[in-house]
Amino acid sequence: MIVILRQDPDKAQLDSLITWLKGKGMDVHESRGTSQLVLGLVGDTTQIDIDLISALDIVEDVKRVQEPYKKANRKFHPEDTVIPVGDTQVGGGNLTIIAGPCSVESREQLLTIARLVKEAGATMLRGGAFKPRTSPYSFQGLGPEGLDILREAREETGLPIVTEIMDAADLPYFEDIDVLQVGARNMQNFDLLKAIGQTGQPVLLKRGMSATYQELLMSAEYIMSEGNEKVILCERGIRTFESYTRNTFDVSAVPVLRKLSHLPIVVDPSHAGGKRELVAPLALAGVAAGADGLEIEVHHDPARALSDGPQALLPDAFAKLVKQMNAMHDLVEEL
Amino acid sequence: MIVILRQDPDKAQLDSLITWLKGKGMDVHESRGTSQLVLGLVGDTTQIDIDLISALDIVEDVKRVQEPYKKANRKFHPEDTVIPVGDTQVGGGNLTIIAGPCSVESREQLLTIARLVKEAGATMLRGGAFKPRTSPYSFQGLGPEGLDILREAREETGLPIVTEIMDAADLPYFEDIDVLQVGARNMQNFDLLKAIGQTGQPVLLKRGMSATYQELLMSAEYIMSEGNEKVILCERGIRTFESYTRNTFDVSAVPVLRKLSHLPIVVDPSHAGGKRELVAPLALAGVAAGADGLEIEVHHDPARALSDGPQALLPDAFAKLVKQMNAMHDLVEEL
Amino acid sequence: MIVILRQDPDKAQLDSLITWLKGKGMDVHESRGTSQLVLGLVGDTTQIDIDLISALDIVEDVKRVQEPYKKANRKFHPEDTVIPVGDTQVGGGNLTIIAGPCSVESREQLLTIARLVKEAGATMLRGGAFKPRTSPYSFQGLGPEGLDILREAREETGLPIVTEIMDAADLPYFEDIDVLQVGARNMQNFDLLKAIGQTGQPVLLKRGMSATYQELLMSAEYIMSEGNEKVILCERGIRTFESYTRNTFDVSAVPVLRKLSHLPIVVDPSHAGGKRELVAPLALAGVAAGADGLEIEVHHDPARALSDGPQALLPDAFAKLVKQMNAMHDLVEEL
Amino acid sequence: MIVILRQDPDKAQLDSLITWLKGKGMDVHESRGTSQLVLGLVGDTTQIDIDLISALDIVEDVKRVQEPYKKANRKFHPEDTVIPVGDTQVGGGNLTIIAGPCSVESREQLLTIARLVKEAGATMLRGGAFKPRTSPYSFQGLGPEGLDILREAREETGLPIVTEIMDAADLPYFEDIDVLQVGARNMQNFDLLKAIGQTGQPVLLKRGMSATYQELLMSAEYIMSEGNEKVILCERGIRTFESYTRNTFDVSAVPVLRKLSHLPIVVDPSHAGGKRELVAPLALAGVAAGADGLEIEVHHDPARALSDGPQALLPDAFAKLVKQMNAMHDLVEEL
Repeated sequence: MIVILRQDPDKAQLDSLITWLKGKGMDVHESRGTSQLVLGLVGDTTQIDIDLISALDIVEDVKRVQEPYKKANRKFHPEDTVIPVGDTQVGGGNLTIIAGPCSVESREQLLTIARLVKEAGATMLRGGAFKPRTSPYSFQGLGPEGLDILREAREETGLPIVTEIMDAADLPYFEDIDVLQVGARNMQNFDLLKAIGQTGQPVLLKRGMSATYQELLMSAEYIMSEGNEKVILCERGIRTFESYTRNTFDVSAVPVLRKLSHLPIVVDPSHAGGKRELVAPLALAGVAAGADGLEIEVHHDPARALSDGPQALLPDAFAKLVKQMNAMHDLVEEL
Repeated sequence: MIVILRQDPDKAQLDSLITWLKGKGMDVHESRGTSQLVLGLVGDTTQIDIDLISALDIVEDVKRVQEPYKKANRKFHPEDTVIPVGDTQVGGGNLTIIAGPCSVESREQLLTIARLVKEAGATMLRGGAFKPRTSPYSFQGLGPEGLDILREAREETGLPIVTEIMDAADLPYFEDIDVLQVGARNMQNFDLLKAIGQTGQPVLLKRGMSATYQELLMSAEYIMSEGNEKVILCERGIRTFESYTRNTFDVSAVPVLRKLSHLPIVVDPSHAGGKRELVAPLALAGVAAGADGLEIEVHHDPARALSDGPQALLPDAFAKLVKQMNAMHDLVEEL
Repeated sequence: MIVILRQDPDKAQLDSLITWLKGKGMDVHESRGTSQLVLGLVGDTTQIDIDLISALDIVEDVKRVQEPYKKANRKFHPEDTVIPVGDTQVGGGNLTIIAGPCSVESREQLLTIARLVKEAGATMLRGGAFKPRTSPYSFQGLGPEGLDILREAREETGLPIVTEIMDAADLPYFEDIDVLQVGARNMQNFDLLKAIGQTGQPVLLKRGMSATYQELLMSAEYIMSEGNEKVILCERGIRTFESYTRNTFDVSAVPVLRKLSHLPIVVDPSHAGGKRELVAPLALAGVAAGADGLEIEVHHDPARALSDGPQALLPDAFAKLVKQMNAMHDLVEEL
Repeated sequence: MIVILRQDPDKAQLDSLITWLKGKGMDVHESRGTSQLVLGLVGDTTQIDIDLISALDIVEDVKRVQEPYKKANRKFHPEDTVIPVGDTQVGGGNLTIIAGPCSVESREQLLTIARLVKEAGATMLRGGAFKPRTSPYSFQGLGPEGLDILREAREETGLPIVTEIMDAADLPYFEDIDVLQVGARNMQNFDLLKAIGQTGQPVLLKRGMSATYQELLMSAEYIMSEGNEKVILCERGIRTFESYTRNTFDVSAVPVLRKLSHLPIVVDPSHAGGKRELVAPLALAGVAAGADGLEIEVHHDPARALSDGPQALLPDAFAKLVKQMNAMHDLVEEL
C-alpha cells in the first residue's frame, strides 16, 4: 500500500500515522521527493481499511499494491479450484452447461424442459422458484413448491439443480439444492453471503450489474471467509451506456478472473444480451475466452411463450448450440 | 405501450397475440405502414410484463408509453407527499438535514457528535449500527448495541434517528427507529423491501449505484404496494467511468424525480463525492436543484479519525455548511 | 416513428404538427387512448430530426421505429459487403489479420516487424505515422516520413497498409494508402468523415469510446453518403466503470452490427484490453462471435520495448495466435 | 510515479529500467517488501509515458502521483485565471451568461434572439454556424454566412460571440470571433487543438462525453502548450447508463476542476439535461457549485420551433432564470 502525503504534512500527525501503521504490523518505508513524501507499507494490508487512512488531513491519496482478498486470490492458491456437483465437476477442464427455464411455472413445464435439455447435453438444470422482479406486480415465483418440482426433475433426469436464493431466511428450503445461485442484485447482500458461507453448499455468484472484478471477488471472499470455498463466479453482463443489448457482456471477465482467482468461471449469455439471436455468438465467445461453463435459458413452447424472456432459446436451437460449444471447447483445450 | 412487429408477421401468431392482449383488458389499435405493423395498446399496462411480449417471434420491439409504477407516480398523486418524522416533517418546504457519523463506534463518540450536529442545526441524527462493508475483514458495526446508543442520543437531543437495515430478519430490532435506511446495495433486495413495506415506518431508500430513475421508483413501489407510503428517495451518486470522485453525483435526479413522483427527495453529498472538500459544493448544488433534504457525514475527532471516511466533515465545517444550506434553501423558496 | 403527446394537447398546435408532418410526406395515424394520444408516422423518417419534434410543447416523447441510417442498413442492402484491399478481401468468409506496431518509429523497426508479421500469417500491415496522443508531450508520430516507410514495407512484403488519418488536410499524403483508419477519438469528426467519403479509399472506422452501435453506423453513413461505401467497422472497446481493463471489449458488437448492417466487422483486442495477456483470449472471443478480422499490435524487441504499449504481442506469441485464430475461424465457418 | 514490479523480477531487466529512468532525470527510490519491490520515481514525470513502463515484462503496474499536465495545473499556477472577452471577463468573480440559439438559421432569427438575450441580461451571444450533427441528413449549418450574421448581431448588441469550430482548415473564417468553441466530439481532435493553440483566441473547450477530468485538462494542455492560455473549461454532461436525461450533468466537475486547475469553468445545462424543464434547476445547481458561467440555449418562436432542440428555453423563461442565477451567484459570493 502506498500513502501519498500532502505537501508539508504536519509533523505530529505524520508521526502519529506512522506509529499507528507500525502498530498494525506494517513496515513503513519513507520516500522523500522534491515535492512530496510517499510512504510504502509492507505487510498484510488486507486488514487495513483504505478509507480510514484517506480520511487524514495529511494524506492526499492511498493506492493499494496488493489485492484486498485472500482466499479468492490466485496468488495464495495457485491451483485451479474444481468443484464437485452431483456426478459432475465445475472447472478442471470440464464444460459445465446449465440450462433450463427462467422460472419454474408448473410441473409439466419444468419436466418437459428438463428432459429436453438433458437430451441435448446439459449437465445441470436451472429454474427460478424465488424470482427477483423489478416490478412488484410481476410473477414472483412458485417458492418452495417450485423447489419441489426442481427436485422431481433432478430425480428423473439425474441433473443437479441450480436455483436462486434471495433471502437468508429461506435457507432451510434449500438444504439439498445442489447449487445456490446468488443473483446480480444480491451480490452485495452481505448478510445473505455470510449465511451461505456457513452452509458449505456450492454457490453460483453472479456479478452485480455495476460491480468491478475486485468487488465480485470481495463478495466471493465473504462466502469463503465463513468457511465455504465452493464458489463459482458468473459473468452476466454489466450496465453501460449501450442500451441496444440489455447489458454489455464483458467477455474480458473470463481471462481477468482466471488470472486473479483460482475459482471456476461461468458466463450467462442469455441475460447479458437479452435477445435470443445473441445467445449463440456470446456463448461461443465465452467458451473461446476460456469459460468453464455457461448458464443458458431454454423454453419449449413458443406458441404460448408469454412466460419466458426474449432471451430464451428453443430446444432445437439449444441442442445445436451445445454441439457447437462442445466443439469449440475441444478446440480451446487443444490450442 | 407500443408493440412493433417484425416484417410479415405470422398471421396466426398475430391473432393469438391480439386476443391475449384484449383478454388482459387492453384496447389494441393497429397502425399499418409501408414496411411495418405497429400495435398501440391502451389501458392499464402496468400489469403487463414487457419481456413477455418481446419474447414472441413476431415482435421486433416493445416500447412503454406509460410508467410501470403507480403509487409512486405523480400522475396518479399530483400533490407532494410530506412525511412526518418525530416533531419534524420531510418535504413540504422544509429542509431536512440528517447528520452524524458513518458508524456508531461507541456511546461517547455518538453522543458527542449528536450534540454537536444538533447544535449546528441538524434535524435528524444518522449513524450505522449494521454496516454493509465490501470487505468481510472490515468493521461490521455494533449491531443491536449500536441501535441502543442511537436511542440514547435521540432521548438526549430530541433528534429522530435514521439508520440502515440490511436484512428483513433484523426488523424486530428496528421497531421504534424513526427512519429505516435501505442502502444502495440493497435497493433491489426485494424481500427486504416487501418486509419494510409491512412496517409502516418511514424509509430512506437510496438509489443503487447503477439504478435508473425508473428502477428506483419501482423499488419505492415495492414498499408502497405493501401499504407503506412513507418513502423518502435518496440520490447518493451513480457509478460512471469517472473515478476521481467515488461516484458521480447525479444532481438531475432531484428535478427528474420531482417530476415523476410525489415522494420527497434527499441527497447524500458525502457518499456521492467521497472527498471532504466536495461535500459543501455538492450539498449546495443539491439544495439549489430543489432537494427536500440532505444526509451528511460528520465526525468530531480528526486526531484519531482513523474511524471515519474521507468524506466526513468536521463539526465546524458542518455548522458553517448548515448556515449556507439554509440560506440557499430560503433563496430557492423565494425564487 | 411514434409521437407521444402530452395530456390534453393544444388543438391548434396539434393540427399544425400534423400538417407539417404530412408536408414531409408522412402518413399520420392517430391512436387515442384513455389518457394519451399517440401519433404513428409512416414513411421515410430518416430525414426527420427527432429533436425537432421533441421540442414542441405538446410532445411528451418521440420514439423511432426505423433506424436513421440507410446506406449502412442491412434492411436496404441484405447482402454482406466484401471490400477488396490489395490482393485480399475483407468480409466474405475471409479472416483479415491486420498486425504491426502501434507507431512507425524507424525504417528498421517497421521493416523488421513487417517481415515477422507477414511470415506469421498477417494479411495487412498496420503502423501509425500520425498519432493521436492524449498528452502534447508524447511522441506525435513521424508524419509523412512514416507513411513512406510503410510504403517501403508494403513493397517488400506485399502486405496492404492500414494507417490512421487525423485531419482532412492531410489526405493528399494518404492517396495510395490501402486502408485509411479513423480513430475512436475522431469517430464523430464529421468534416474528416465527409472528406474521406469523397476519396473512395477503404476505411477502417473505429467505434468511439462511448459511441452506441447506432452512432457508429451513423458515422459510417456520413462516409457512405458522400459516395464511398468501402467502410469496415471496428470494435475496440468502450468506456465503462471497470478500470482494470483499459476499455471493456464489447464482443456483442460483432453479432449486433452483423444484424444491423452489411458492412464487414473487425475487432481490436489490443486496445480493448490494454494488457498483453488479454490479447489472445479476446481475439479468440472475437473470432468465435463471428468477426471478419482483427487488428493486433505486435512489437519485436522487448529489451528496448520502451516504445510500445503494454498491449503489444511479441512475434512468437503473435505467430501462435494467428494459428489459433485461423483454426477457430475454420471451426466457426463449419458450425 | 510509483512502479510496482512483478514478483522476482529479472535482475538484468530491472537494472536496465533503473538506468533508463535515471537517464530521464529521475531519482529512483526502491522499497522492498515481503513479496514485492516498488520503485518510487522523483522528478519531472510529466514527460514520461506511463504506457512505456507498463509495457515491460517485469512491471505489474504503474501509478502516477503527479498529474501529467503542467500549464493547466493549479499547483504550478495558484491564482485563478481571468480571461477578458470584449468588454467582459470570464472568471474573477463574474458570472458569464452565454445565450442564444443552437443554430444560426437566418439573419432575422438570430438578431431577434440576440436582442432578447441581451435585454434579459446575457453577457455573450452563442449560435452555431458550423454544426456537428450525428446524421449526414440533418441541417449542417449556414457556414461562413452564419458567422457574418453573428458579427452583425455583435455589432448591434455589443455582445461578444461564441461559436463552434470543427476543422482547423476553417480557422481563417474565425479570425475575429471572440470565443472559439470546441465541441464535445472534438475534445480530442488534437490537430484542431494545436491549431487553435496558435491563434491566441479565447477558447471554450467542452468536455467529451466520456472524458475524465484529467483528459479534459490534457486537451486544455494541448492548446496551452502551443502558447494560448485563454482556455475556458465547460462541463456539458457525460454519458452514463441513465438515458432519461440526454447526458448526466456532472456538477462535481465544477469543484474538482477548480481544485485541479486555475482555468475558469462554465457549465452547459441545456445539453446536459436535454429537456427544457431541467435547464433551470441544473443551471442553479451549477452556480451553487461555484461555476464561473453558463451556456444556455434560447429560442424565440415556439409556434414554428421545428428548428431548435427540446432543451431550448423561451425568452421569458430565460429572463426569469437570469435573475435567479444572478441572485444565487450573489449569495454564493457572500457565503
